[in-house]
Amino acid sequence: MSRRYDSRTTIFSPEGRLYQVEYAMEAIGHAGSCVGVFSNEGVVLAVEKKVTSKLLEVSDQSEKMYVIDKHISCAVAGITADANILINQARLAAQRYRYQYQEPIPVEYLLQQVCDTKQGYTQFGGLRPFGVSFLFAGWDRHYGFQLYQSDPSGNYGGWKATAIGSNSNAAQSIMKSDYKEGLSLKEAHELAIKVLSKTMDSTTLAADKLEVTTMLKNKETNEVQVHRLREKELESLLTTSGLLSAQTETSG
Amino acid sequence: MSRRYDSRTTIFSPEGRLYQVEYAMEAIGHAGSCVGVFSNEGVVLAVEKKVTSKLLEVSDQSEKMYVIDKHISCAVAGITADANILINQARLAAQRYRYQYQEPIPVEYLLQQVCDTKQGYTQFGGLRPFGVSFLFAGWDRHYGFQLYQSDPSGNYGGWKATAIGSNSNAAQSIMKSDYKEGLSLKEAHELAIKVLSKTMDSTTLAADKLEVTTMLKNKETNEVQVHRLREKELESLLTTSGLLSAQTETSG
Amino acid sequence: MSRRYDSRTTIFSPEGRLYQVEYAMEAIGHAGSCVGVFSNEGVVLAVEKKVTSKLLEVSDQSEKMYVIDKHISCAVAGITADANILINQARLAAQRYRYQYQEPIPVEYLLQQVCDTKQGYTQFGGLRPFGVSFLFAGWDRHYGFQLYQSDPSGNYGGWKATAIGSNSNAAQSIMKSDYKEGLSLKEAHELAIKVLSKTMDSTTLAADKLEVTTMLKNKETNEVQVHRLREKELESLLTTSGLLSAQTETSG
Amino acid sequence: MSRRYDSRTTIFSPEGRLYQVEYAMEAIGHAGSCVGVFSNEGVVLAVEKKVTSKLLEVSDQSEKMYVIDKHISCAVAGITADANILINQARLAAQRYRYQYQEPIPVEYLLQQVCDTKQGYTQFGGLRPFGVSFLFAGWDRHYGFQLYQSDPSGNYGGWKATAIGSNSNAAQSIMKSDYKEGLSLKEAHELAIKVLSKTMDSTTLAADKLEVTTMLKNKETNEVQVHRLREKELESLLTTSGLLSAQTETSG
Amino acid sequence: MSRRYDSRTTIFSPEGRLYQVEYAMEAIGHAGSCVGVFSNEGVVLAVEKKVTSKLLEVSDQSEKMYVIDKHISCAVAGITADANILINQARLAAQRYRYQYQEPIPVEYLLQQVCDTKQGYTQFGGLRPFGVSFLFAGWDRHYGFQLYQSDPSGNYGGWKATAIGSNSNAAQSIMKSDYKEGLSLKEAHELAIKVLSKTMDSTTLAADKLEVTTMLKNKETNEVQVHRLREKELESLLTTSGLLSAQTETSG
Amino acid sequence: MSRRYDSRTTIFSPEGRLYQVEYAMEAIGHAGSCVGVFSNEGVVLAVEKKVTSKLLEVSDQSEKMYVIDKHISCAVAGITADANILINQARLAAQRYRYQYQEPIPVEYLLQQVCDTKQGYTQFGGLRPFGVSFLFAGWDRHYGFQLYQSDPSGNYGGWKATAIGSNSNAAQSIMKSDYKEGLSLKEAHELAIKVLSKTMDSTTLAADKLEVTTMLKNKETNEVQVHRLREKELESLLTTSGLLSAQTETSG
Amino acid sequence: MSRRYDSRTTIFSPEGRLYQVEYAMEAIGHAGSCVGVFSNEGVVLAVEKKVTSKLLEVSDQSEKMYVIDKHISCAVAGITADANILINQARLAAQRYRYQYQEPIPVEYLLQQVCDTKQGYTQFGGLRPFGVSFLFAGWDRHYGFQLYQSDPSGNYGGWKATAIGSNSNAAQSIMKSDYKEGLSLKEAHELAIKVLSKTMDSTTLAADKLEVTTMLKNKETNEVQVHRLREKELESLLTTSGLLSAQTETSG
Repeated sequence: MSRRYDSRTTIFSPEGRLYQVEYAMEAIGHAGSCVGVFSNEGVVLAVEKKVTSKLLEVSDQSEKMYVIDKHISCAVAGITADANILINQARLAAQRYRYQYQEPIPVEYLLQQVCDTKQGYTQFGGLRPFGVSFLFAGWDRHYGFQLYQSDPSGNYGGWKATAIGSNSNAAQSIMKSDYKEGLSLKEAHELAIKVLSKTMDSTTLAADKLEVTTMLKNKETNEVQVHRLREKELESLLTTSGLLSAQTETSG
Repeated sequence: MSRRYDSRTTIFSPEGRLYQVEYAMEAIGHAGSCVGVFSNEGVVLAVEKKVTSKLLEVSDQSEKMYVIDKHISCAVAGITADANILINQARLAAQRYRYQYQEPIPVEYLLQQVCDTKQGYTQFGGLRPFGVSFLFAGWDRHYGFQLYQSDPSGNYGGWKATAIGSNSNAAQSIMKSDYKEGLSLKEAHELAIKVLSKTMDSTTLAADKLEVTTMLKNKETNEVQVHRLREKELESLLTTSGLLSAQTETSG
Repeated sequence: MSRRYDSRTTIFSPEGRLYQVEYAMEAIGHAGSCVGVFSNEGVVLAVEKKVTSKLLEVSDQSEKMYVIDKHISCAVAGITADANILINQARLAAQRYRYQYQEPIPVEYLLQQVCDTKQGYTQFGGLRPFGVSFLFAGWDRHYGFQLYQSDPSGNYGGWKATAIGSNSNAAQSIMKSDYKEGLSLKEAHELAIKVLSKTMDSTTLAADKLEVTTMLKNKETNEVQVHRLREKELESLLTTSGLLSAQTETSG
Repeated sequence: MSRRYDSRTTIFSPEGRLYQVEYAMEAIGHAGSCVGVFSNEGVVLAVEKKVTSKLLEVSDQSEKMYVIDKHISCAVAGITADANILINQARLAAQRYRYQYQEPIPVEYLLQQVCDTKQGYTQFGGLRPFGVSFLFAGWDRHYGFQLYQSDPSGNYGGWKATAIGSNSNAAQSIMKSDYKEGLSLKEAHELAIKVLSKTMDSTTLAADKLEVTTMLKNKETNEVQVHRLREKELESLLTTSGLLSAQTETSG
Repeated sequence: MSRRYDSRTTIFSPEGRLYQVEYAMEAIGHAGSCVGVFSNEGVVLAVEKKVTSKLLEVSDQSEKMYVIDKHISCAVAGITADANILINQARLAAQRYRYQYQEPIPVEYLLQQVCDTKQGYTQFGGLRPFGVSFLFAGWDRHYGFQLYQSDPSGNYGGWKATAIGSNSNAAQSIMKSDYKEGLSLKEAHELAIKVLSKTMDSTTLAADKLEVTTMLKNKETNEVQVHRLREKELESLLTTSGLLSAQTETSG
Repeated sequence: MSRRYDSRTTIFSPEGRLYQVEYAMEAIGHAGSCVGVFSNEGVVLAVEKKVTSKLLEVSDQSEKMYVIDKHISCAVAGITADANILINQARLAAQRYRYQYQEPIPVEYLLQQVCDTKQGYTQFGGLRPFGVSFLFAGWDRHYGFQLYQSDPSGNYGGWKATAIGSNSNAAQSIMKSDYKEGLSLKEAHELAIKVLSKTMDSTTLAADKLEVTTMLKNKETNEVQVHRLREKELESLLTTSGLLSAQTETSG
Repeated sequence: MSRRYDSRTTIFSPEGRLYQVEYAMEAIGHAGSCVGVFSNEGVVLAVEKKVTSKLLEVSDQSEKMYVIDKHISCAVAGITADANILINQARLAAQRYRYQYQEPIPVEYLLQQVCDTKQGYTQFGGLRPFGVSFLFAGWDRHYGFQLYQSDPSGNYGGWKATAIGSNSNAAQSIMKSDYKEGLSLKEAHELAIKVLSKTMDSTTLAADKLEVTTMLKNKETNEVQVHRLREKELESLLTTSGLLSAQTETSG
């Protein structure tokens, strides 16, 4: 019966649901997990890389992690081509703001623009929703470090720890039980890794299956920057987290 | 049989109904309750926060309460992403008016603009109605304090006490019996809390499940301002209303 | 069989009917009654207020009566949000005319513009008709006092006495038998009240269920103005008409 | 089987028919009759007024007769709101021509513009045909007096005597047998009245059920003008035509 | 099975046919016949007038014959309102060319423009093909006298003798057997009349059922002009052709 | 089952096919054959004329052969009206290039433009593909003589010998076996005629059923030009090819 | 059941899939294979030519290999006409960049633009996706040699070795086992040839069935250039790879 109402973004079902938006979220449920953890020292984003198909793919280029501006980065779950459109738009908005006001764009202001675009695609005919959810990690002088999540409906919210993509429900329940206020950055890393290890289909976690970036303040320059963990850092993180399995060590 | 007429905003059913608009209202019926109570001293807006899913969400940012301008605030029930679009439009209209005429926008004039936009989405093809109802609380020098309600059809009206969102019918019948002309602000707060406590699904009411703002006149500066009740104020309000249950006190 | 032809404004049925326009009229049949009576001394518009739902609604703001310009007012039956759009357009047209020609807009000229808009929405694709009928009361120096009725098709005509909304057929047959040429303004009021009392669902008529405005000439300034009957005037009118029932007096 | 091809103006049926245009003509078949008779001394247009519903309607304003310019008038059968649009367009075209060339618009040139608009609405998607037929009576210095008929397809032709609206076939067969070349204006009036009396549903013809205008040359000023027959003239016409029945005289 | 592919101009059937174009041609098959015969001395166009319905229609105005410019005329079979649009466009194009280059438009160049318009209406969505075929008779200094035929698809070709409208196949087979190279203008007239007499439904041919024009060179001024045969000429032509039946003479 | 995917150009079937494009090619399969043969001395295009229907059609004007510019000509199979649009566009592009750069347009550059237009009509909604295939013969200073074939999808390629229209598969298999590198122009003519004679439905080949043009270099002026074979040349070509049958000679 | 969701690019299926994009990929699965192999010395692109149908087609012009700019070339699998549109757009973008910034366009920046176009065609109504996948080989001063693959969804990624078109899965599994880091250009050629030989339908590999280009640095000028292997080079490559079969040598 839902069939009559699920073929366009421009019709409500009798229960007031927008099926196309829900189906778009379904597309995200098949994508690799993204985990975000907020700490007062910074924000950690961790994503699962689909290693198998990437043996020959150039691994330097991430399909799941993007830097929008110096002070904002994001992780993506869903249709990559859709994400590219929105990320380009976000980058442009960030540069335009920086040019116009000579200061970095506030994080939520940027997010709002991205989400307004998303919302439009759920209300106008002849379009489909963007099949992509985002985690945005950022810092601005108004609110400090921030972590946001946005979904295909154009809805967004600020979070302390959250996950999108496959098994995101499982991820969130782990975080609910394990997250504590006032986490150090190191603890945030470990929590992110732990959550990701539980949601990934593969039984063991290896450094080449992971991608972790941190939005933090450079202790010397005191500037906000995005730091991407190198393979060594990832491995030591896995070791300290007790997640580096024997097999991985052998094959690594 | 309603099926033939319920898939577009651009067709009337044989009985003269617009089903898509009714379905959009259905979406609002699933949203958290919003209660508005008018008093000559100010206007109270109270909303239910969905605490469970917000354990890790940043609670400072409200998804249900927005300040449009210094003298106008609103509460939202329905699709948040839809609301964002209209709220941004309202904020822009308020600023444009202030810039052009060097005075705050009259409350109903602003509301009319928002509702005209809503109406257009119920009459033109290739669009769906905005799935959102508003309570607007405001003050202007023409009519003093005002409380309005608007629904997805673009219809709106002035009210002394009203509710939108889930169980709004129950809320309105309580208010009809309990509302009295010439309420003090304190009584308005208590009525709003009482109504909300009856419509919420959860059996007990805690400060962290509530959000209450008041549009009032600062006694010192005599300026209109939006005051958001802090957790302490909420708790004392709950206590004086006799609504703070034993369990809540324990868990709080 | 009408089903094939009733889903768009852009198709005629084999009998040459436009079902969507007829369905829009159906929407008006459910709305509260509006009665208009023409007299050489002025034009009376009377509408039924839905009291029950308005206990908490602010009663100063009418959803059924609007002043377009000093010399034109109108009563509305149908979808209020649709009416708002057309009334704003009419007000703008009236002001534009006044600004351009330094005199009030002729009544029929204004009406024609409103009705052309309505007609367009019955002929172009991707739109629905405006679900609203109007009674326009006005005065201009060309034709003096005038009373017009317009329906969702964009059709309009001048009337001496007419009614729109629920039970409008019953209303018109009463007026046909009771209307006489050369009515005084007082007799026009009494006829309007009488007709309304017969078409309303409620058995008794109270001042708070009514709204009556008169387009008349101020005897002192000789200027045309819209006069809205206050509660006292309404009650005395009801009394003289013999319509004020015992119950109402008790409950009033 | 016609069903597959009758829902849009943009498709031909396999027999090469445009059903929507035919359905629009059907709408005209339900409208009151309009009769036009050409004489070298002028052109007579006569229409049936629907008296019953007009008891309270202001009878000075005709819904079936319009003056386009001093030298062109028209009678309308069909949807009045549609006719208004085309008549406004025609009036504007006539004024624009007069302004640009300092002389009255030629009758056929004006008609062609109206009919081109009509044709467009039978060929483009997302539109319905105009549900209206016209009789145009006019005079210009090129062809003298002229009588034209146009239908919803945009087709038009010059006629010596013709009828549109209900029972138009019956009307035309009477005219075919009774029309003679070189009719005087008086004989043209009588023929028009006679034809109308036969096509009207009511058995007797009264002056208040009729509206007759004549496009003629003022004998003094030698200027073309539209003359509308007053009630007296109508009655004397009915008497001389032997059509004024006993009942009508009594009831008049 | 053709049903799936016959409702739009924008889809091919699996056999590569455009049904809407074929249906438009069907509309032309019901129209009165038009015959064109080429001779080196000029081009003859002859059309059948539908006399019965035209008893009261003004016969001076042809619905089937149009002069585009001094050197180009055309005969029309199909929907007259559609033809009007294209003929107006053609006249405008001819005048624009004459204005721009100070010489008459070449015949084929004009035709090409008309046919490009026609083609567009068979390829773009939301339109129907023009339901009209043309015979164009013209002369230009490049190719002398020319006779063209164009159909609703936008296709056209040069012919020595051809026919469109009802019974056009029968007409063409007569012409194929009777046409000879180097016909005199008189013989061309006789052939045109003969063909028309065979294709018309009525058994006898009278001057008032015919319309014949000739594109020829004025022997005195040597200018190309369109000559329309007057009733006398038509009758003498019928007599010399042996086609004037006894009945017609009696009734004439 | 293909039925679901064959009604628009904007949908792929599950096997990745575009049925509307394939159906458009079907339309070409019913058109008269066109053969193109490349030789280093020039390019030969030969087409079949449908003689039967052309007895009265003016044979000087070809519906299958067009000169785009001095150095480019083309042969057409499919819907002539569609071809006209593209050929006009091609001619305009050629002239514009010549005007802008003072030299002839390169052949492939022109072809690319035509094919881009064709492609667009297979990808955008509300359009149908052009139902026409082309053989382009041309010469430019970059690549000398060239022969291209393009189909409704917008695809094109360079060929040494190819055929489009009815029986094109049979034609291509003959050419595959008979074509040799380094053909003289005379041999190219003979091959083209031979192929055409096999693909035509009529059993015998006569000069009036053929049209042959050659893109070659004028030996005197050394300029590229399109040469159309006159009837004499055609007959001698048929004779030398041994294709002129006895019957044809008798009937010729 | 997938049927409900597979006819437009603008609807998600309930599982979050975009069927039209998947069907477009199906079209690519039928196209000839394209193989790309990255080496630090350059990038090799190898494609299969469909020899059989090309006996008479001019082989100099590739339908599968295009040079975008001096430093970027690409191989195409899918609908050639679609590819032409995107390649022209890419060439234009490259020239525009070069003109604006006086340096070659970065490879990924160009690719991003092509893919944004592709993405748009999967999200907007009235369009179909581009039925084409690309391999892009390029060099820029930021990242040196690069090999990218893009599909109809607009998705793209950097690869060390990859294949598109028919049997691309088989191709990728061979590459996964055989590719080694630090391949020399010669080894890259051999790997490309080997992979292609396994995926082609024909059992034997001949030089005329292959097309191989290399993006490399000219050792003398040190400039990046696209080198297309001539037939001799191809044959020697086949010989050294041990893939030149006995039959091929005989027939060659």
